[in-house]
Amino acid sequence: MKATAPFPVINRRALLSTMALLPALSVAFFPASAPAQTATSGGSLPSWNDGAAKQAIIDFVRATSDRSSPSYVVPEDRIAVFDQDGTLWVEHPMYTQVIYCLDRVPDVVAKKPELKNREPFKTVLSGNREAIARLPMQDLYKILAATLSGMTVEEFNAEAKKWLEAARHPRWNRLYTELAYQPMLEVFRYLRDNAYKTYIVTGGGQDFGRVYAEKVYGIPPEQVIGTAGGTKFAYASDGKPYLTKEPKLLLNDNNAGKPEGIHLMIGRRPYAAFGNSTGDRQMLEWTAAGAGARLKMLLLHDDAAREYAYGPAQGLPDTRVGTFTPALYDEAKKNGWTVISMKNDWRRIFAFE
Amino acid sequence: MKATAPFPVINRRALLSTMALLPALSVAFFPASAPAQTATSGGSLPSWNDGAAKQAIIDFVRATSDRSSPSYVVPEDRIAVFDQDGTLWVEHPMYTQVIYCLDRVPDVVAKKPELKNREPFKTVLSGNREAIARLPMQDLYKILAATLSGMTVEEFNAEAKKWLEAARHPRWNRLYTELAYQPMLEVFRYLRDNAYKTYIVTGGGQDFGRVYAEKVYGIPPEQVIGTAGGTKFAYASDGKPYLTKEPKLLLNDNNAGKPEGIHLMIGRRPYAAFGNSTGDRQMLEWTAAGAGARLKMLLLHDDAAREYAYGPAQGLPDTRVGTFTPALYDEAKKNGWTVISMKNDWRRIFAFE
Repeated sequence: MKATAPFPVINRRALLSTMALLPALSVAFFPASAPAQTATSGGSLPSWNDGAAKQAIIDFVRATSDRSSPSYVVPEDRIAVFDQDGTLWVEHPMYTQVIYCLDRVPDVVAKKPELKNREPFKTVLSGNREAIARLPMQDLYKILAATLSGMTVEEFNAEAKKWLEAARHPRWNRLYTELAYQPMLEVFRYLRDNAYKTYIVTGGGQDFGRVYAEKVYGIPPEQVIGTAGGTKFAYASDGKPYLTKEPKLLLNDNNAGKPEGIHLMIGRRPYAAFGNSTGDRQMLEWTAAGAGARLKMLLLHDDAAREYAYGPAQGLPDTRVGTFTPALYDEAKKNGWTVISMKNDWRRIFAFE
Repeated sequence: MKATAPFPVINRRALLSTMALLPALSVAFFPASAPAQTATSGGSLPSWNDGAAKQAIIDFVRATSDRSSPSYVVPEDRIAVFDQDGTLWVEHPMYTQVIYCLDRVPDVVAKKPELKNREPFKTVLSGNREAIARLPMQDLYKILAATLSGMTVEEFNAEAKKWLEAARHPRWNRLYTELAYQPMLEVFRYLRDNAYKTYIVTGGGQDFGRVYAEKVYGIPPEQVIGTAGGTKFAYASDGKPYLTKEPKLLLNDNNAGKPEGIHLMIGRRPYAAFGNSTGDRQMLEWTAAGAGARLKMLLLHDDAAREYAYGPAQGLPDTRVGTFTPALYDEAKKNGWTVISMKNDWRRIFAFE
């Protein structure tokens, strides 16, 4: 696992082009409704249209859970892994966690006033979105490191939870947690009903994902694998121990880091993998290389009307890191992975629709 | 998590004093019987004598699982963690994994003949136990690194499994996996019957523990946390991906590394912790510092007749790394942790008795 940067690379072009769409950095903390969690009924995957993608999921579950099937898998080996941003919820105009980090800057500076006139914090505080968008990558890393470390693990959890209960996506004016894809919530339920243990394997922060995964997806903290920094154990003056989040990278859970992280945290090969970008390629390849029936699914964002269209759906290579490139599309087709068309395969995208 | 040495420190004194007791390094691969897994009946903890230790476990389970209790814990938060060597199975005369590594040397040298005349491999191959016992620590690290890395994860699992099915403890002439403590197997079952998720948190190798934990303790690979090295994802000439174990430390799961590892792998604080040595101190402190009822248990090896007596039971400080020192004994008494006396609290130690 390469330890080159404190957090996964965020594409600067995407940041530049979308910064203008963002709401002001300060967030109004009005009371928020709970994330939508509609119960499914009348078939296992009601938000999916009939087609190759839905059928691939159903066929896989049957093949691995029917005792008479040559591809039967004992329940304790049934592991399914899911990328998070862009696979389970909206990743445009920017990864939710990056918006969180930018929003955290005023609080971080309030606690460390010496940062007020220091870059890049000064620029972020100015609220000048064009200037923020021009910040070089190393400055963005400084913001990620400053806003995701230095506090106890409990403080971080409380801060992130508070933000997630208030911050809203500019396009839908909905909580980010409401932008989970309803068809994927149904896949979770369907797999779990068939004894699959479901894991998130995200390039985003592991601790950040653990704050919302249980409520939004029914996935407990120990089943969220993500880019992880170290913690440091120490004693307070009253002798009570605490853990502080450190600006030190332990696991960069992207690209080859995904199968490496799966080995570290799970210790065995998944039978099913869902992704949407080049960052998920190795996880899909690692899953595919196992014996027996394996489910390999790639979500294509081709629905500009209901969500977004990018990657091969635009007919152009997209240089944004983490995007579903035409090369990945070709690999999927060549190897028989299933591409999910958001436009054609999903009857409904969000629970609130 | 400190990255000072590739593997947890092994005490040289213990190694020196016990090397003479070891069987010859080469292991005869005769067919082995399955590890004993006797079903419990007639009470939850039949191998425990009535007393404070047994009562502490029962009281804790009642306090956290009875809905009317002020200390009630929702099932999804019920996490229990267990040290492995010396808490769940015999750790004398030497950690089982160290014996494994020494036994692996001939095979490693067969694959890399250039090591044959190089130290420390030459000495290990000589079979001269006194000379092996005199090897300095850095040479032991070389042996650990050479025998626990450089192969694919599947190759490692197959090798370790084969060894565990054949190697025997010199005192009992039993498989190492048969030396699991029957009273602790009953604690696992009792906790799991009450919705607790049970984890091993070992200073030993994570991958090594995962090879036997499911069969011996009913603990799946993803619930074994241990000292972990990195892996490297790569492609074979046929394009098939594989993961190689690297001689690079990611998590030194000892001392402060135990709560740090628990945060990394579980993401929340346990309600129950079992240990037997100073390496478990911070894990016990971290567990104890949570609100509500918390179970803190330390196993004292005070039974030279049926197992071993060391640590405070000898009335002498023991400098072996990982041992239950008198200072830890004092901390336990001061903070109300429960000390389990192997001699007095356990009616039976092994399933084969």
